[in-house]
Amino acid sequence: MKNKMREFSAKDYHFMQRAITLAKQGYFTTSPNPRVGCVLVKNGEIVGEGFHQKAGEGHAEVNALAMAGKNAQGATAYVTLEPCSHYGLTPPCAKGLILAGIKHVIAAMVDPNPKVAGNGLKMLAQAGISSQHGLLREAAEALNVGFIKQMTTGLPYVRCKLAASLDGKTAMKNGESKWITSPQARQDVQRLRAQSCAIISGADSILTDDAKMTVRWSELGVLKNSYQKENVRQPIRVIIDTKNRLTPNLALFNEHSPIILIRRTIENIHQWPHFVKQVSLPIVNTSANEQHIDLHALLQYLAKLNLNDVLIESGAQLAGAFIERDLVDELVLYQAPKLMGADSKSLVNMANIESLSQAKELNIIDLRMIGEDIRIIAKFLA
Amino acid sequence: MKNKMREFSAKDYHFMQRAITLAKQGYFTTSPNPRVGCVLVKNGEIVGEGFHQKAGEGHAEVNALAMAGKNAQGATAYVTLEPCSHYGLTPPCAKGLILAGIKHVIAAMVDPNPKVAGNGLKMLAQAGISSQHGLLREAAEALNVGFIKQMTTGLPYVRCKLAASLDGKTAMKNGESKWITSPQARQDVQRLRAQSCAIISGADSILTDDAKMTVRWSELGVLKNSYQKENVRQPIRVIIDTKNRLTPNLALFNEHSPIILIRRTIENIHQWPHFVKQVSLPIVNTSANEQHIDLHALLQYLAKLNLNDVLIESGAQLAGAFIERDLVDELVLYQAPKLMGADSKSLVNMANIESLSQAKELNIIDLRMIGEDIRIIAKFLA
Repeated sequence: MKNKMREFSAKDYHFMQRAITLAKQGYFTTSPNPRVGCVLVKNGEIVGEGFHQKAGEGHAEVNALAMAGKNAQGATAYVTLEPCSHYGLTPPCAKGLILAGIKHVIAAMVDPNPKVAGNGLKMLAQAGISSQHGLLREAAEALNVGFIKQMTTGLPYVRCKLAASLDGKTAMKNGESKWITSPQARQDVQRLRAQSCAIISGADSILTDDAKMTVRWSELGVLKNSYQKENVRQPIRVIIDTKNRLTPNLALFNEHSPIILIRRTIENIHQWPHFVKQVSLPIVNTSANEQHIDLHALLQYLAKLNLNDVLIESGAQLAGAFIERDLVDELVLYQAPKLMGADSKSLVNMANIESLSQAKELNIIDLRMIGEDIRIIAKFLA
Repeated sequence: MKNKMREFSAKDYHFMQRAITLAKQGYFTTSPNPRVGCVLVKNGEIVGEGFHQKAGEGHAEVNALAMAGKNAQGATAYVTLEPCSHYGLTPPCAKGLILAGIKHVIAAMVDPNPKVAGNGLKMLAQAGISSQHGLLREAAEALNVGFIKQMTTGLPYVRCKLAASLDGKTAMKNGESKWITSPQARQDVQRLRAQSCAIISGADSILTDDAKMTVRWSELGVLKNSYQKENVRQPIRVIIDTKNRLTPNLALFNEHSPIILIRRTIENIHQWPHFVKQVSLPIVNTSANEQHIDLHALLQYLAKLNLNDVLIESGAQLAGAFIERDLVDELVLYQAPKLMGADSKSLVNMANIESLSQAKELNIIDLRMIGEDIRIIAKFLA
């Protein structure tokens, strides 16, 4: 587990980059497991490679070892995450690497779970296998922001998707709002949904748009080339409905995939489909006149269900409530090239932000055109 | 003046591109004259080149001919704008090309003034010199958007600069607003000012910020390398002050460069510095309760003064009034990576925009990071 054994070479970077590329092939399918890639190299040549496809199926190391066969003997393993040391749905990967006769292991990062961090590398060391870690760590971390955040904080990684005009408006005063952004932007939102374990929305949004909040494979664009229809994993739809306003006749309930209704009180008036679960969560006072579901408790609840990557798709009220409470990690903002004017409705309501020093600050990590719209990805500063 | 004489070759593109690059060297100094570059080519080699530096000094063709000397005989001239055919501060360039023995002329675009378009090329044809036009026309037009718009419509090209948070807010409810954007963004605004002939602002903005609205050479960043301090041309400051609220003690009047105060009535109470001119313009009714200076008349007035490139730097009210009346060509929007919330003040007030079909649509032509902020340049759709 020494980390300064030898300097990383250009070849090391090359092979780890390949492992990261492999890991990305599981981008839309591995959760709640992390995305992991593995490359086995002997005499400067790749003798085996693999990635984790989905929970219950082979880990990246297992798949790479299977491909290498006897060539694994004496090889170096490049893995994007420290090999696991515990028995889960599959045996520990560290053990597999030992049995195959791997000579040296380079991990991009150690296991983010503070309780187990380093145990996989220790298991290797006890078997006489040297290891290093930290090569392309940032890129490896970016593969698994949700997994890492859940492991280290007990909360999911939360993205908030918003769409507005250039002057930050989402609807006219009269409520008119449909199709502010282009088809390309809406297609990009489908991709965001596909990479999420859960989508949080509010009863208002559902009632206004009669939205289904599902991933529509046909609208995934180029992603369809690498992501088969049968592998589409519908995110759990989590709808905050404190006033029990939703009814089973809505389009939301026509799609047979899990829904969690967050309510103050469980209701037994309606006949709900089998895939709908009602959950009651505590209410907190947010100001003199306002009461809200405890959004922090909601996120903790979702993390316990291993829903590590959560997407908020809601109106200004709910999005603002999450942002105001510093519960959002990342903003994904689509801006349509329009100006709607000051009388139109604003993007985020944050009732308790009153001075510039309280304004929420972000760091822009990606900026690009999506069709004729702008997409901004920004991380909230701590 | 035939345009299909021969196909443009790769070399033609190369030399015209060079002429455009030369023209850009006059970017901050030529107005009200157009930015023009000229390259003279003989036997595939550049024998002379030049650009127009400022009004009253040599035109691009004159400077290129001076450099070429006798080598101009038999050369091809690449000019970004049709050579002029009239006597102004200098003799017509078409005549200069004829006298120097130029054989062929390629112009990127014809003169945009409909009254004279083509006359320069005609003068060449009458002297037996062939010509073509249209090579890299779009790039050549981009050099002179203000000159072209004034010539074709009698109005200046109007840019509106705005700065806001990601949710389109410019100030907190309590008015707090200073330094929303970064020093780099403010430096970029200095460049915008430097390329403008006039800056329009409102009395509100001046009174709130005690702003000078001048170009500060020290804040021009890399531009300082190519743009000497003594060449800085201060844009005319045009301040709309219908209620005669400005007084000579403001910082605005400490800078000795021209100011036009647009007022309903000329006032004689204060002693104004010699560089201040008061102008009275008609008032128009904009809605049942509102009266405004006739902004269209204001722009016509500025165009008649040859102020071809105008920058609006104002608050939400005045900017919105120009935009609502379709008087703005281009939006330059700086977005700071912040969220300020719905209660904060919005970017543009457009009182009469009530449905989504009335929202102003734009086309994004440039998108980039300026320091930690985003800069969006977008053209309003007609």
